[in-house]
Amino acid sequence: MKKTMFDIVQNDLVTLETELLSVVQSPVKLISDIGTHLTQAGGKRLRPALYLLCAKSRAEADTAERAIPMAVAIELIHMATLVHDDVIDEAATRRGQITANARWGNHSSVLAGDYLFAKAFSLISGLVNNNMLKILAEVICSMCEGEIIQNKDIYNPQQTEEEYLVRIAKKTADFLAASCVLGGMTAELSETELAALRCYGYSLGMAFQITDDILDVTASSEQLGKPAGNDLRQGIVTLPVIYALQHSADREELRSIVTERNMADGQVARGLEIMHGTKAVEYCYSRVDDYLNEARQCLPASLPEEIRETLITIADYVGLRNY
Amino acid sequence: MKKTMFDIVQNDLVTLETELLSVVQSPVKLISDIGTHLTQAGGKRLRPALYLLCAKSRAEADTAERAIPMAVAIELIHMATLVHDDVIDEAATRRGQITANARWGNHSSVLAGDYLFAKAFSLISGLVNNNMLKILAEVICSMCEGEIIQNKDIYNPQQTEEEYLVRIAKKTADFLAASCVLGGMTAELSETELAALRCYGYSLGMAFQITDDILDVTASSEQLGKPAGNDLRQGIVTLPVIYALQHSADREELRSIVTERNMADGQVARGLEIMHGTKAVEYCYSRVDDYLNEARQCLPASLPEEIRETLITIADYVGLRNY
Repeated sequence: MKKTMFDIVQNDLVTLETELLSVVQSPVKLISDIGTHLTQAGGKRLRPALYLLCAKSRAEADTAERAIPMAVAIELIHMATLVHDDVIDEAATRRGQITANARWGNHSSVLAGDYLFAKAFSLISGLVNNNMLKILAEVICSMCEGEIIQNKDIYNPQQTEEEYLVRIAKKTADFLAASCVLGGMTAELSETELAALRCYGYSLGMAFQITDDILDVTASSEQLGKPAGNDLRQGIVTLPVIYALQHSADREELRSIVTERNMADGQVARGLEIMHGTKAVEYCYSRVDDYLNEARQCLPASLPEEIRETLITIADYVGLRNY
Repeated sequence: MKKTMFDIVQNDLVTLETELLSVVQSPVKLISDIGTHLTQAGGKRLRPALYLLCAKSRAEADTAERAIPMAVAIELIHMATLVHDDVIDEAATRRGQITANARWGNHSSVLAGDYLFAKAFSLISGLVNNNMLKILAEVICSMCEGEIIQNKDIYNPQQTEEEYLVRIAKKTADFLAASCVLGGMTAELSETELAALRCYGYSLGMAFQITDDILDVTASSEQLGKPAGNDLRQGIVTLPVIYALQHSADREELRSIVTERNMADGQVARGLEIMHGTKAVEYCYSRVDDYLNEARQCLPASLPEEIRETLITIADYVGLRNY
């Protein structure tokens, strides 16, 4: 995510980094080490940035100081899900860096993830209202459901686009929606405005995840910081593959590749080749555009102009990003 | 835990079971299945029972209805830690039943644990005050720290009793202390009374965990519902072994067994034999007695007589339990 998009919250994002590094310090050195590694591994900080932007939606109110703990909690939760995902996927690298599980083992990584979840709630209890806590807790439930559905459906070539959309909504879009809504709540927006921000965040999140799934089949391993074609190899059937399974002349061959539980490099490459022989990527980008249009149209007219423009720039960017 | 000890909260514990089964139901069938399995696998329900008892510490107030969600949250958190522990330990059975990881795999079990943590917070946000949320979140942090310390120290024969006590405080005693304190807060007790309940819960928890560690080296596999000598086999150095490492004439042999990362059955048996050749078990039971005396003495005189008596009965029982 280009840092320039977040000019308005640039100072807050600098504070966020300092605070993240501070809250992951524990009397137990191994927790501090893992927490520091996860924080310094970086990331787009998209969720806290959206939260912080939306928290500035009342031009007259300066919410920065009281918004920071929730921004930290949001990123801690994201970090916790990533560290657990990497354990589950047995991933060796993320963003080009060694994963916590590869470096410290599954044992410490599962517990470090639990620690980050709990730290997030410890940090904000007492500072935000209970509705906000509930939204955050329910987003975690939703993400777990999304990941479990995804796992249940691996190596299954019969998934529909509709099932895929339900899964990525739970896995990604609900959290982006919640980040925006929580920001709006911090700014004390009206229910109508909150519903509009939820729609924006949700649509942005859907576009973001579909783009992620496109990049997995189009970008190079260097761009991704992890092996390309990784989803296919793991049996995760994403939208480009679902499209190709429905439209390719070689769909039977693709179907047999998708169901292969020990996929050789050559099979991954052939699967991608079949997919690229269809209009799958084009189709997926058209769905991304639909969601981004929806996101732009959702935005409440009442937002301060510079917030609105920034949120639109973010939507534009999600359609163009290549990593 | 004998059910008769909890007569006063018997009805609440029945409600607890119904509520637990209800809150683990999700639109995602696999989550409902795992949640139902974990609930029906049973357990002593010691933490929610302590919480519910302490919540009745003001004789005049009927706290049952508003206490139930927190009791459910406490047990959900306990269940979440157990399911993650079983993933980490690659355990095949718990309480004589197949573990979630053995039945559904690590992937779904890690996520189901995360789901239970989040569900606990979702359930109580809005119903309890923020201090109570913070206490609960911090207990999870503490348990993660305890487990990580334990993992760091496996196969290490140089641990001291003091290090062992710090570790079991974080792993077990802090949560029992918090369960009592949260109950006291629900009953709106004074700060002094809360401190007394914290002392009771903490001391009871220390005694409980030392007893657990004694039983691991004295009880049969049938009694435990898991293999006996399991801690030693996994390299977890508990108090009986720490004592034997300091006092046995065969301490060098025991030391070499403790550091063995692939312990054969014969080595586990020989390790236990060396330990039983010392006064380790006697010594550990004397420490249990110390903590239980402390627990009894801590109890605030202001508690209603039947609550006080039940809490004392529980302390008596912890010193006698054999499973």
